Amino acid sequence: MRIAPSIQKLIEQFERLPGIGPKTAERLTFYLLHTPQSFLEEFAASLENLKKLTKICSICFNVSESDPCPICSDRQRDHEVICVVEQPLDILALEKGGFFRGTYHVLHGVIDPLNNILPEQLYIPQLVSRVKNDTINELIIATDPTVEGEATAMYIQQFLAREPNLLGLKITRIGRGLPTGADIEYADEQTLARAFEGRKEY
Amino acid sequence: MRIAPSIQKLIEQFERLPGIGPKTAERLTFYLLHTPQSFLEEFAASLENLKKLTKICSICFNVSESDPCPICSDRQRDHEVICVVEQPLDILALEKGGFFRGTYHVLHGVIDPLNNILPEQLYIPQLVSRVKNDTINELIIATDPTVEGEATAMYIQQFLAREPNLLGLKITRIGRGLPTGADIEYADEQTLARAFEGRKEY
Repeated sequence: MRIAPSIQKLIEQFERLPGIGPKTAERLTFYLLHTPQSFLEEFAASLENLKKLTKICSICFNVSESDPCPICSDRQRDHEVICVVEQPLDILALEKGGFFRGTYHVLHGVIDPLNNILPEQLYIPQLVSRVKNDTINELIIATDPTVEGEATAMYIQQFLAREPNLLGLKITRIGRGLPTGADIEYADEQTLARAFEGRKEY
Repeated sequence: MRIAPSIQKLIEQFERLPGIGPKTAERLTFYLLHTPQSFLEEFAASLENLKKLTKICSICFNVSESDPCPICSDRQRDHEVICVVEQPLDILALEKGGFFRGTYHVLHGVIDPLNNILPEQLYIPQLVSRVKNDTINELIIATDPTVEGEATAMYIQQFLAREPNLLGLKITRIGRGLPTGADIEYADEQTLARAFEGRKEY
């Protein structure tokens, strides 16, 4: 049997999304057949407008509907502290906590020479000029604790440490250890080693 | 931080889909920010057209772009055998095997009195009139082997068994037992019991 082309097409488009396999793509498509046309049209409009209505903030490179983004234009925030993240999604996670009142800088990736991603392909030069030109007290490097994330953090730290005008700049790396709710029994050696290194006195 | 409304909206729409939680919805939305506008527009068009271009086949109630559907209008297929399934997606799974050359009948659900789904809400009356008016040799009931699927299969079988004109009709239920590649060690009691009941001589 040939499946209806309009159904097949949507299945294939869902399959292109990360983490969605052929079975899930089929299930989503057939689910949508039972939803009202109005929902399908709103969903379609959101997809079409997603990139039309958003832009990249020229200061922090976060995705936003305005430039500068709401965080960079918020006078209540501490513009002397910059938190460096890999992706806009990381800002979302950090903002949910509401504990950080500084600004951000989105790299849009990590250094990954095997995949031809060098520092110049990321927003690292822009970070450097931002740190040089503005009054920045602290740079918190919050890339993921993966091999590439650590290498990127290390690269930024070493690059900035060589700059003669930036001797007063405090560069920190987010803390490592056991996540809340974790089970020591199941933690890996690396995490446990970092948790011991990062222990705090009561 | 307020997240950009056009991003927030798409996240919420993804969240409405089955099996997609808040984290996955965020990940999909931010992934789409990196795809070309042309893909977003094609994706949007597929969503809008999904229901516009499809209809329900008036014979078997499968979803198709034509009425009757390609299976019901295919003269090569055996129109004297009907396989009863719950959902159009089940036809997709059965057709992939290519072992069945008969036609289908889609119930669009199962009898589920707790959720107010009675036989009249499904396409059971249409199945009965189809069996009565056409020359049908065999009805293969292929509803899922769940409580509701079994109850629906039983209901159809008993309803048709009471019809005086349908004494020659063969009503069968798909075989039960261990799926290919299964591990007897991990199979549940019910499945093992059905596998023993359904054993075959060499």
